[in-house]
Amino acid sequence: MKVYLDNNRLTPVDPQVYNVMKPFLEDIYGDLNGMHYAGAKTRKAYNEAVEKCYASLNASTKDTLIFSSSSTHSNRNLFMSIYIEFILTGRKNNIIVSEREPQDILDMARFFEEQGCRVNYLPANSDGVIDVERLTDYITPRTALVSVSMVDSESGAINPIEEIVEICRSYEVPFHTDATQALGRIPVDFQRLDADYLSFSSQTLHAPSGLGGLFVKGSVELNSLIKNESLNIAGIVALGKALEIASDALGFEVEDMRDLRDELEEGLRELDGVEILVPWALRSPNTLLIACEGVESESMLYELNQAGIACYSATINPFGDYKQRFITDILGLDSKFRYTTVGFALNKNTTQDEIKYTLKAIKDALEYLRSFSHVDVNKIEE
Amino acid sequence: MKVYLDNNRLTPVDPQVYNVMKPFLEDIYGDLNGMHYAGAKTRKAYNEAVEKCYASLNASTKDTLIFSSSSTHSNRNLFMSIYIEFILTGRKNNIIVSEREPQDILDMARFFEEQGCRVNYLPANSDGVIDVERLTDYITPRTALVSVSMVDSESGAINPIEEIVEICRSYEVPFHTDATQALGRIPVDFQRLDADYLSFSSQTLHAPSGLGGLFVKGSVELNSLIKNESLNIAGIVALGKALEIASDALGFEVEDMRDLRDELEEGLRELDGVEILVPWALRSPNTLLIACEGVESESMLYELNQAGIACYSATINPFGDYKQRFITDILGLDSKFRYTTVGFALNKNTTQDEIKYTLKAIKDALEYLRSFSHVDVNKIEE
Repeated sequence: MKVYLDNNRLTPVDPQVYNVMKPFLEDIYGDLNGMHYAGAKTRKAYNEAVEKCYASLNASTKDTLIFSSSSTHSNRNLFMSIYIEFILTGRKNNIIVSEREPQDILDMARFFEEQGCRVNYLPANSDGVIDVERLTDYITPRTALVSVSMVDSESGAINPIEEIVEICRSYEVPFHTDATQALGRIPVDFQRLDADYLSFSSQTLHAPSGLGGLFVKGSVELNSLIKNESLNIAGIVALGKALEIASDALGFEVEDMRDLRDELEEGLRELDGVEILVPWALRSPNTLLIACEGVESESMLYELNQAGIACYSATINPFGDYKQRFITDILGLDSKFRYTTVGFALNKNTTQDEIKYTLKAIKDALEYLRSFSHVDVNKIEE
Repeated sequence: MKVYLDNNRLTPVDPQVYNVMKPFLEDIYGDLNGMHYAGAKTRKAYNEAVEKCYASLNASTKDTLIFSSSSTHSNRNLFMSIYIEFILTGRKNNIIVSEREPQDILDMARFFEEQGCRVNYLPANSDGVIDVERLTDYITPRTALVSVSMVDSESGAINPIEEIVEICRSYEVPFHTDATQALGRIPVDFQRLDADYLSFSSQTLHAPSGLGGLFVKGSVELNSLIKNESLNIAGIVALGKALEIASDALGFEVEDMRDLRDELEEGLRELDGVEILVPWALRSPNTLLIACEGVESESMLYELNQAGIACYSATINPFGDYKQRFITDILGLDSKFRYTTVGFALNKNTTQDEIKYTLKAIKDALEYLRSFSHVDVNKIEE
């Protein structure tokens, strides 16, 4: 049996999504801007796909959607434009990013630091969510951007974005959120949220990877460096369909996925020396990150892969002055848990059989690996 | 009959290319870096595709290939990195781009100007190719980059890149060429060429649009801002196959395409008031740009589209202080030709029937449009 539980990184393509993009890989082609029949066909498909993107996120027609190749690419474009418009000109002198941002944003933050800009890293609290209280310690009217992801890609922690937006508004500071791990898992409403920028990626939406987007609030004046760079009509059509499906799935399908995740979670809770990270109520419905005493992540991933299970471990992202903070340290776990995380990210097609099989495989792997581990799990438990 | 002759902008997807990418849209998925069976499968396919890209351009294993979503995206990344590393730091104070660069490069050049950097625009000569002689007027050891495309996307003019590289080398100035219009049409050998940077795009290679690449010479130290941003494994597999096919097509297939283009060219040469732009020997084998006395481009495109023919007209790119130079002015044609260009860009699947049909349709359109045009073509001819 093969069980794929690495869906926060990449989701399999939905056959419905593939079907709508197929014609654009077969016999419909033509530059959107071409003054001819071929361009007219793709222009129509493009407009329909764009409408689906707006509808799925409840964006206003006044908002702008800029396609790119990934959320990473969208994030880089945004940060670079902020750098040139605000930091380089001396109009602002600071950005604030959460310490749990995706690597591409932490890389950009480092670039800002190298260029002499003050960067503050918003810490996560012991629940694994970004600490709103701390934002007011750092934010000033000269802050050029605050960036906090909606959902942590590794732990599944859901950040208190609405409260963060409120603080940013009161200081009149632009706010960006990477919604890559939120779409299709929790409701996202761009109008209600009132963020200035929201980025997302196709590869977590059951569309082929290679497409991303940045929604920009209509009230934001657009820098000339932020432009549509994608002519990928097949990809854009796929993304429109994928967002529509993801939005529709927020009812029953997400509940079913959560139930299966919970079944796995309950099973693991009963095991000795296994910690469930991030409280249930604060976590994305598809994600479960655990730490296993006495068993290194790599060994666990290897064993589970031998059993046909694809999952992941939490990385240790270096940030600010190249410091590192382990997710297990953030959550207040003993340092012995640092290299023991294993994550399971389900998708809407994950089955109960797969979950039962995975639970059994985890138990077997723990037993096997602990049988020759240098750390005695029972001794630690005393 | 439908005849698609807008192939410098976008090529139809080759079924062979589609076939190799299909499995990655159906049942092969997994992040390249995932520590599991799914990642292992895509990693293998990725490596094979990358090898094909290197082999097709005869790049050295020491060279770096950085994927992006398009040549536009690759060009922007490169220019931005040059800006930050050389201009912003004050190490260099100038860039040189050809006046016939694609719009994305002219946009970046304008950005450099706005930031106070000196930008020189290398003019094209009366044959439509970039004037090598002029390069020495502008280039200094403080020039951060020279950028000249291999082949003009509108006129098909083949630029004297080797001579330009030689001059850049003698001044120790980095050189970039956008090869989007060259690959699959003229031989491109990255090792022999000795350029520092070469960008290209999937959409002119009979692969789906949405993927681009930048080859960087092994001797060039890479800026941390130039990074692989594409996880688009289906797109990368397609690109590898497309480059392999394009490289193989440089023999017979390109010759056949040239013969058909020549047939169209000969037919049009016989017509009154039709100018063939750029000498035959200096032009890409798939491209034919004409100017038609007394007939506006838009009307011609409209009429030809009515007949099922998709083609294009030369745009007027604003550059340097927002000046404009029309391709017809560059080539020394009378100003009455300015808004009369029509371009035909064939692909390797263009048929003789299509060419005969197109020639007839052009004749009909000219006759029809001139019948009520405010400009009397015969009068002009006197």
